[in-house]
Amino acid sequence: MGNTFGTHFRLTTYGESHGLAVGGILDGCPAGLRVDMEALGRDLARRRTGTVDGTTARREEDSVEFHAGILDGVTLGTPIAFGIKNRDYRPEDYDLLADAYRPGHADYTYQAKYGIRDHRGGGRASARETVARVVAGAIAKQVVAPVAIAAEVETLGPEAANDTRGGTVRCRITGLRAGVGEPVFDKLGARLAQAMMSIPSAIGFEMGAGFAAARMIGSEYIDRWNADGTTRTNHCGGVQGGISNGMPVEFRVAFHPVATLPTEVECLTEGGTLRPTLVGGRHDRCQVTRATVIVEAMAALTLADLMEGRCRRADIDGLTN
Amino acid sequence: MGNTFGTHFRLTTYGESHGLAVGGILDGCPAGLRVDMEALGRDLARRRTGTVDGTTARREEDSVEFHAGILDGVTLGTPIAFGIKNRDYRPEDYDLLADAYRPGHADYTYQAKYGIRDHRGGGRASARETVARVVAGAIAKQVVAPVAIAAEVETLGPEAANDTRGGTVRCRITGLRAGVGEPVFDKLGARLAQAMMSIPSAIGFEMGAGFAAARMIGSEYIDRWNADGTTRTNHCGGVQGGISNGMPVEFRVAFHPVATLPTEVECLTEGGTLRPTLVGGRHDRCQVTRATVIVEAMAALTLADLMEGRCRRADIDGLTN
Amino acid sequence: MGNTFGTHFRLTTYGESHGLAVGGILDGCPAGLRVDMEALGRDLARRRTGTVDGTTARREEDSVEFHAGILDGVTLGTPIAFGIKNRDYRPEDYDLLADAYRPGHADYTYQAKYGIRDHRGGGRASARETVARVVAGAIAKQVVAPVAIAAEVETLGPEAANDTRGGTVRCRITGLRAGVGEPVFDKLGARLAQAMMSIPSAIGFEMGAGFAAARMIGSEYIDRWNADGTTRTNHCGGVQGGISNGMPVEFRVAFHPVATLPTEVECLTEGGTLRPTLVGGRHDRCQVTRATVIVEAMAALTLADLMEGRCRRADIDGLTN
Amino acid sequence: MGNTFGTHFRLTTYGESHGLAVGGILDGCPAGLRVDMEALGRDLARRRTGTVDGTTARREEDSVEFHAGILDGVTLGTPIAFGIKNRDYRPEDYDLLADAYRPGHADYTYQAKYGIRDHRGGGRASARETVARVVAGAIAKQVVAPVAIAAEVETLGPEAANDTRGGTVRCRITGLRAGVGEPVFDKLGARLAQAMMSIPSAIGFEMGAGFAAARMIGSEYIDRWNADGTTRTNHCGGVQGGISNGMPVEFRVAFHPVATLPTEVECLTEGGTLRPTLVGGRHDRCQVTRATVIVEAMAALTLADLMEGRCRRADIDGLTN
Repeated sequence: MGNTFGTHFRLTTYGESHGLAVGGILDGCPAGLRVDMEALGRDLARRRTGTVDGTTARREEDSVEFHAGILDGVTLGTPIAFGIKNRDYRPEDYDLLADAYRPGHADYTYQAKYGIRDHRGGGRASARETVARVVAGAIAKQVVAPVAIAAEVETLGPEAANDTRGGTVRCRITGLRAGVGEPVFDKLGARLAQAMMSIPSAIGFEMGAGFAAARMIGSEYIDRWNADGTTRTNHCGGVQGGISNGMPVEFRVAFHPVATLPTEVECLTEGGTLRPTLVGGRHDRCQVTRATVIVEAMAALTLADLMEGRCRRADIDGLTN
Repeated sequence: MGNTFGTHFRLTTYGESHGLAVGGILDGCPAGLRVDMEALGRDLARRRTGTVDGTTARREEDSVEFHAGILDGVTLGTPIAFGIKNRDYRPEDYDLLADAYRPGHADYTYQAKYGIRDHRGGGRASARETVARVVAGAIAKQVVAPVAIAAEVETLGPEAANDTRGGTVRCRITGLRAGVGEPVFDKLGARLAQAMMSIPSAIGFEMGAGFAAARMIGSEYIDRWNADGTTRTNHCGGVQGGISNGMPVEFRVAFHPVATLPTEVECLTEGGTLRPTLVGGRHDRCQVTRATVIVEAMAALTLADLMEGRCRRADIDGLTN
Repeated sequence: MGNTFGTHFRLTTYGESHGLAVGGILDGCPAGLRVDMEALGRDLARRRTGTVDGTTARREEDSVEFHAGILDGVTLGTPIAFGIKNRDYRPEDYDLLADAYRPGHADYTYQAKYGIRDHRGGGRASARETVARVVAGAIAKQVVAPVAIAAEVETLGPEAANDTRGGTVRCRITGLRAGVGEPVFDKLGARLAQAMMSIPSAIGFEMGAGFAAARMIGSEYIDRWNADGTTRTNHCGGVQGGISNGMPVEFRVAFHPVATLPTEVECLTEGGTLRPTLVGGRHDRCQVTRATVIVEAMAALTLADLMEGRCRRADIDGLTN
Repeated sequence: MGNTFGTHFRLTTYGESHGLAVGGILDGCPAGLRVDMEALGRDLARRRTGTVDGTTARREEDSVEFHAGILDGVTLGTPIAFGIKNRDYRPEDYDLLADAYRPGHADYTYQAKYGIRDHRGGGRASARETVARVVAGAIAKQVVAPVAIAAEVETLGPEAANDTRGGTVRCRITGLRAGVGEPVFDKLGARLAQAMMSIPSAIGFEMGAGFAAARMIGSEYIDRWNADGTTRTNHCGGVQGGISNGMPVEFRVAFHPVATLPTEVECLTEGGTLRPTLVGGRHDRCQVTRATVIVEAMAALTLADLMEGRCRRADIDGLTN
């Protein structure tokens, strides 16, 4: 049904953008982990503003309510349930959309799928949903530590007066041992691809050299060995046959420009006419900077799921609290 | 564990490249479907040679043995089990690799993951494994019909004496109704991304305008409505919010050059030395043409899984035998 | 990880008995269903008191907070998230148990599994957790309607001064068409068995004639046909080969006596001594009456999951709002 | 779809009773395990005859063909695929059943579910299917060793001239550490219940004191502590709150009499008439003895799945080859 990610370390999320709350249940987190609420607050602040200072981090941290699974700051091994209230809730912004579909949005496709939709904002398709990913991702980062995951803006689309922009995000995972990932269908690159392409506005994904590799000849592309098991280049992005090889895991995600233009656009009405509308709601013109922390969260969730052994048995795997 | 694809229409595969056989179990296929063995033979021939004539198709069709799930050519609704013997089996080609890891292959990563591997060819990582995908994909194509799935080579990497090539494959899905795909984590683009990135040598994936979309401004990117619910452009690749919008679903897959060079390469020995080796086995210099049918198979498996309702209830959905 | 039930109609629950809240996410519910909040309130009241009058039903209904997935009382097809606050929260009752394990409870096994536990009540093992099942079950009942599910107390264990009792519950499902259930591992009886044995204090399960069937001869046991496809007896409990045959589905669940005795019992301390303790908390002496609605809820969740086609496509299956 | 058991240690089976073959794919088995083919042969012989001597064990062992996942007798960590040909195949025995449904069998329910069936024997519902469970179960037993699983016939139904019998099987699991099983829905008892009730002819299941516990008072039922963490009685069957407590895990399964009577019975024709028929095929009059090894196999598969950490990481968990 699309609202659950992972098998062994599993996030299920809920929430429409303009409903009461968004949140989720994170299941499979090892017991005995002291959740780093400050780091979690920093990630939430990055998601909200693209940057973070102490003030914003604290404000964000306070807004998440943990309902279960954590006692005195330490995980119990039971499901971690959390919610974030949708405080500044202005659904009346969306009245014009009760019978019309915006271009570039999921209004039409949700109507086709469900025969009903919450027209107040994007519903489940809204980027609001990603807040639950960031909360769970912050915990996942702790689970996979000392593996480090860092995403950054690589390129931004052209700036133009009165218009929106996209761009690309590059992510690098270091400290990951060789042997993580599954053969055939759950290759590390394949699972990362699903994870990244599930982020709102993601439209492209590549490992290592990616599309450029399709233009190389084999003797240029192939990553040659050093005697210590590292390779001289990393065109493959740290994955061979779907399994990590001990080199940094590197990938890139393309995001299309924000779909909500700051100008009037023609919406399609249920009656089959085009109606020029200045779409309401409050939207950024560029979300690529804010996307970096979501990329990291999804990478952490992917790794925590694939590193199942580690996830469940804190004692064996030497997780520290 | 990586050997199963899909939840509602589910393929589980098995087989090392130089073991006794490769094959799989396809579960969730509706009962009462007359399997088109000729079409299946054509797809297998495309996988083997990149092209097909009547002779090759027939030879390929004969090589698949169905063990269960089909009676008198018609599916029973029970698991469809099939196998393909590895007939021309020359594991001695690989003796040199018993204690050494080829560059650009999964030898090292399988050893790291499992502590043991079948060094005779790529084991599970070999492209030999994809034959099971093509068998199941041919059945999946029938299940999703009249949806049509067509992949073709779009670009090939540069040709060079004594070297291997990669390239890109473009795939187009037509006839798909609006409303297929799931919100959030199982977006149609995300599931296709996983499916495609799970194909051996795949290294990049993009929907619609893909990476080029990251360089557009919003008013250029956004797909504007026609009054009939189609859009004037299809930069999004036929998917909004993870759900099909009725336009053709379009995506592109990048494949890196074949990793087995036709020249000596330095292999890494278990002892930590580099040993120049002319790697054995029989390998193509370019697999992009042959990959097109695998791309189609994985797209069909993805759609059949997401169109669960259709898959199970032949009577309701009007599948003809 | 044990906190999720179902594949196609899926409940994930959370909550320790003395944490902030218990609740869950119900995914896969068809869109367009008007949730019958009165029926839901009645089921919650039955769970709380064993019986129901208008007053208790209303009080219970009010205590559930729906966070997402329902707009103006109608399901959106998106995850239904709900929570129930643990209002009268008296964890100090349990201070004596911080370092000791009650007999007949899960204190010791949780400690063995997780290395940490919430000693305040049974944590996840508490019957408090079942409130989430009843909420989801009430919705599941609507999804499978007009199938009717009715459980009742069949026997109660002996009454004795100052002691606790168990008993058996009998459940009957009527109006279920032939053809529901899966072969082999997910037989209808097998899935019901898991569902029922997952209820706290359940210790036995049987379909139809059950254990008595093991003492019959074949010609006595076998259910003979009537010409209209019904059978003269129903020893099999309405299921053949794991699939419903159109007769009522009948099964029985045994519950052991409440484990918390109203007298002092010897608890096992972490130091390995036995300490007589009057265990705190507020507990019934018999929970069999209250269990009937939980049995119904789990049966409804099982059916809604197995009747996947029905669940997702409200239009086809004629669900009324 | 019912043909897969387990998440972390996962068996998918295929095969109709009178098709070409039955078999399965076992995924998630740790690499480096030397499969004990003699023990496997003994289990297959027990399934076929109820008892075993050296001759039958060897004959059975030879009949299983492993297609993948095992190299030189040692598991590779990749899917283990196996098949058993249906050698003495006499489908003409079943011609009378092409248009008629036997009483006590799944003929009618399969027809209702799929609209088509393999009338030659029970198809997927035949006990023939259990051979794949026994093969996988024999490997699972090695994975969970030194945990020991032993099932035996406890009672047999009355003997009567010209009739069939049922009975009960008792199973005891020793050497299992405390802490195995999951809270809430995947309780050890719940998962065992599903596993056992999925065996053909199973009709009842109970843990420990089972149905008798429903007739006890609490102070009689409750298992009192010894100071060493064992308990004086084991009414709960070794499981508290769904998780093993270190005591033997004990349960009982009831089997109804064999449904195929050795006399004429009235079959229901598709036309809605009753036709006296002497049902063909070769059937035992009592299958309880043969069921013991299937009970053990399903218990082993259940434990191997729940003890996921052990299953994947042979090095950590000290599995010996």
